[in-house]
Amino acid sequence: MMYELYYWPTVQGRGEFVRLALEEAGARYRDVARESGRGGGVPALMRYLDGRARRSGRRERPPFAPPFLQAGRLVIGQTANILQFLGPRHGLAPKDEGARLWAHQLQLTIADFLVEIHDTHHPISGNLYFEEQRKEARRRAADFLQHRVPKYLGYFERLLSSNPRSARHLLGAQLTYVDLSMFQIVAGLNYAFPRAMSKSARKYRRLLALHASVQERPRIAAYLASPRRIPFNNQGIFRHYPELDAAR
Amino acid sequence: MMYELYYWPTVQGRGEFVRLALEEAGARYRDVARESGRGGGVPALMRYLDGRARRSGRRERPPFAPPFLQAGRLVIGQTANILQFLGPRHGLAPKDEGARLWAHQLQLTIADFLVEIHDTHHPISGNLYFEEQRKEARRRAADFLQHRVPKYLGYFERLLSSNPRSARHLLGAQLTYVDLSMFQIVAGLNYAFPRAMSKSARKYRRLLALHASVQERPRIAAYLASPRRIPFNNQGIFRHYPELDAAR
Repeated sequence: MMYELYYWPTVQGRGEFVRLALEEAGARYRDVARESGRGGGVPALMRYLDGRARRSGRRERPPFAPPFLQAGRLVIGQTANILQFLGPRHGLAPKDEGARLWAHQLQLTIADFLVEIHDTHHPISGNLYFEEQRKEARRRAADFLQHRVPKYLGYFERLLSSNPRSARHLLGAQLTYVDLSMFQIVAGLNYAFPRAMSKSARKYRRLLALHASVQERPRIAAYLASPRRIPFNNQGIFRHYPELDAAR
Repeated sequence: MMYELYYWPTVQGRGEFVRLALEEAGARYRDVARESGRGGGVPALMRYLDGRARRSGRRERPPFAPPFLQAGRLVIGQTANILQFLGPRHGLAPKDEGARLWAHQLQLTIADFLVEIHDTHHPISGNLYFEEQRKEARRRAADFLQHRVPKYLGYFERLLSSNPRSARHLLGAQLTYVDLSMFQIVAGLNYAFPRAMSKSARKYRRLLALHASVQERPRIAAYLASPRRIPFNNQGIFRHYPELDAAR
């Protein structure tokens, strides 16, 4: 099947968690909003959000926001939902129900963390520029680095240390989409908060090792070196503002 | 099966979305942290978070945070994940895969909205009192009422108006857990922002009708009238601070 991924074309954002799964799976997909010409670009994405998109005469279920994935007759929105759909189809999720629910639970916890990461630079409103909420951002980021990063990363580090089947995977013995997402979280935090991450590196050895091992997987390495990987930048979720990166 | 729900005992919070589904299903469950005596109370909950909980000699998968549900051998965390587990087992979710993914997608969108609702009174940190972030809260709440409420509620109102099978249900022809959650969102917004909600009532007629029809369902009405329903209060997600409830 040829998947169609819809996400904003200039940032990694939430779309990146889906891209990493598609790339590791070796799946065929179009990154539609990044294509130019007819049927591509942001207008193609907006048609879904506006409720104008149709296939075979049928109106599609309108997602609230990107990313969303067209997979045959289905349009699937919400990052974690897309991943729980793709995972079992591409060997990136465990087979039994309990383990699948556990994988999804971890992915939703990563999603919660991601909101908090985003809100370090936008604590008041996504409609305002960073410069318009800078003072609040400094306060929120300080609390985030002091309390929230240790809570989330500490949790995931403990999962790695207590996984009886692998120290390189958050669950089970094999790579899942959750590991790919955790790679992205670590990569993003290293970009946004290099000083804070460097200072706490010893506390998160297993997470950093997971990051390194995912990065070296052949398909992921090829993807990261390709133009398909959008570089981190200060329009995305992970942004590097030195003033928010306290040296703790 | 006797379910065990674990959630903080003095607030509705995220646990309420699970309670509403269990109540409408007529399921047997213990609300463990609200019980006194051996095996109940907050200590019983903390054992899971600390990774000390065991069943049949096996260590349980530790959730990051409540709510979580013990269902036989499974411990399931993350509200939306619990609901996607319970839904098909109790006639509160559609049967086919596409519709189930759609229901879960809407539930995750509700979860996103809920974070934004919470952050109106805690834009800087959950570790600080409201009074310590009051100025920021006023700014965030104003943006929330002006931009975010219309975006989210407008989206769900449109779903109701375009659902060909029912104007009282967000998807399909029958009640799902998504409708129960939307009832809770409307109830909570009415509690937290009575002036703003009253002013915009005409824009959300279908959502208010959904709220009224859920409220009148016999099992939900009995639940709401019982001591099992914790009243809204200013320790929960939905809090009523008149200064945040601008008259728009």
